[in-house]
Amino acid sequence: MDTMGRHVIAELWGCNVDKLNNLKFIEKMMVDAALESGAEVREVAFHKFAPMGVSGVVIISESHLTIHSFPEHGYASVDVYTCGDRIDPNVAAEYITKQLEATKRESILVPRGMGPVEVKPYKVETFQK
Amino acid sequence: MDTMGRHVIAELWGCNVDKLNNLKFIEKMMVDAALESGAEVREVAFHKFAPMGVSGVVIISESHLTIHSFPEHGYASVDVYTCGDRIDPNVAAEYITKQLEATKRESILVPRGMGPVEVKPYKVETFQK
Repeated sequence: MDTMGRHVIAELWGCNVDKLNNLKFIEKMMVDAALESGAEVREVAFHKFAPMGVSGVVIISESHLTIHSFPEHGYASVDVYTCGDRIDPNVAAEYITKQLEATKRESILVPRGMGPVEVKPYKVETFQK
Repeated sequence: MDTMGRHVIAELWGCNVDKLNNLKFIEKMMVDAALESGAEVREVAFHKFAPMGVSGVVIISESHLTIHSFPEHGYASVDVYTCGDRIDPNVAAEYITKQLEATKRESILVPRGMGPVEVKPYKVETFQK
């Protein structure tokens, strides 16, 4: 298997607070995001924190998706890493952004497995509720 | 909980091929890396691919560690993401680098949860076997 991969790091702000604190919703959303992008789901692990917040990961054949939610800040920290060029990590990142109703997304794309490369500056986008 | 976090992305090359293909070794190493850095382990999920390669994640109270190994390339793609300033993600990244006997590491530190920030250029280090 080729080592080439693309890793989207997305910082989502202004998200729906109830969704951010709902483990079942987050877990289903992350699995659906993987499937939407055409990835094959292998393992799923999620954890709910007290008093709030959810962390979780979906391991896919093509690498992983992770999320850490901070309901008290309306913030979710999202990673979508896909190996190869068959799956576009942006599809899953877009899906998660919409599902969480984020009003602002800061994101970078990190090339993986291709040697030392330059990371382009953050892209900042704002969305209407 | 504060949203501030640090995310080390480490590309490890020239690793021990047998270790890269050993699920039990990789899983224990990743849990130990989390513990070495003082993190609290919450969930563990690993997967072995055919014909080779291991993917896995350790969810910690302070975020996550992930790995994807490509034994045929002597390559491991590692992420260590820790929230707050109590845990230093570099401690876990160093531990993994040594355990896998990597001869070269390319790494960047991505600040998380602090708004749009500049990622510093890759750091490339080489190590003797």
